[in-house]
Amino acid sequence: MIMSLNWRVDHIGIAVTDLNKALSLYETMANTAVTLREVIPEQGVEIAFLDTQGSKIELLASTGPQSKLAAFLAKRGPGLHHICYEVTDIKSELQRLAHEGFTLLDSTPRKGAGESKIAFIHPQSVHGVLTELCEYPRA
Amino acid sequence: MIMSLNWRVDHIGIAVTDLNKALSLYETMANTAVTLREVIPEQGVEIAFLDTQGSKIELLASTGPQSKLAAFLAKRGPGLHHICYEVTDIKSELQRLAHEGFTLLDSTPRKGAGESKIAFIHPQSVHGVLTELCEYPRA
Repeated sequence: MIMSLNWRVDHIGIAVTDLNKALSLYETMANTAVTLREVIPEQGVEIAFLDTQGSKIELLASTGPQSKLAAFLAKRGPGLHHICYEVTDIKSELQRLAHEGFTLLDSTPRKGAGESKIAFIHPQSVHGVLTELCEYPRA
Repeated sequence: MIMSLNWRVDHIGIAVTDLNKALSLYETMANTAVTLREVIPEQGVEIAFLDTQGSKIELLASTGPQSKLAAFLAKRGPGLHHICYEVTDIKSELQRLAHEGFTLLDSTPRKGAGESKIAFIHPQSVHGVLTELCEYPRA
């Protein structure tokens, strides 16, 4: 039953309304540490990665009313937002998924947090789950 | 900034309406393998764990209209449902969280999938995220 695997859960994205309050909560709850915090102006979000053991938590807050995240928060409230898988070759994975009939929100990779390349798959193609792929630079 | 960490993301729970279709999709999308599949009659759900590298994916489908999951699906549709962290001592973590003012859905651990002990924290205490703790038997 076991097949070869090449996707790894990199992080779970969580939409929050107040990043500082959420960071304080996760510190109290799970003793997590912030490993990366940055504003991404082109997306209208501020993010913070929490390093739990294994997969990470990404908290996302909107920096303005025009962002997609602001629309998400207005519609659904704070909560689970997306799941991101690390892959080794994001470009070829996107080509494969397009060929399989998945609807891609990014047909080619774009710049993500840190030095990563990222792309999103439409939630309608993944049973309602906004799904992100990321590729990190080779060490 | 780095502190000692004792929580690990064990899995991400995803609510689906059709477990077989969802399993097929995840197999196509991410080449995942099913590692555990079981019906939990007392919760009215059937679950399947997918072993991606690192944290796992848990797909959850309702087995009847009375389950909490059926209510979730009716209200929000399929999608991200909860996040589960593995801890080493679930009982003491629940006591600590209660003391910190978190609202617990389970004040004492109950039986989860496989041989695990589990407990849930109310999403209102965690910025809208239904949060599960699990403890596995020591190897």
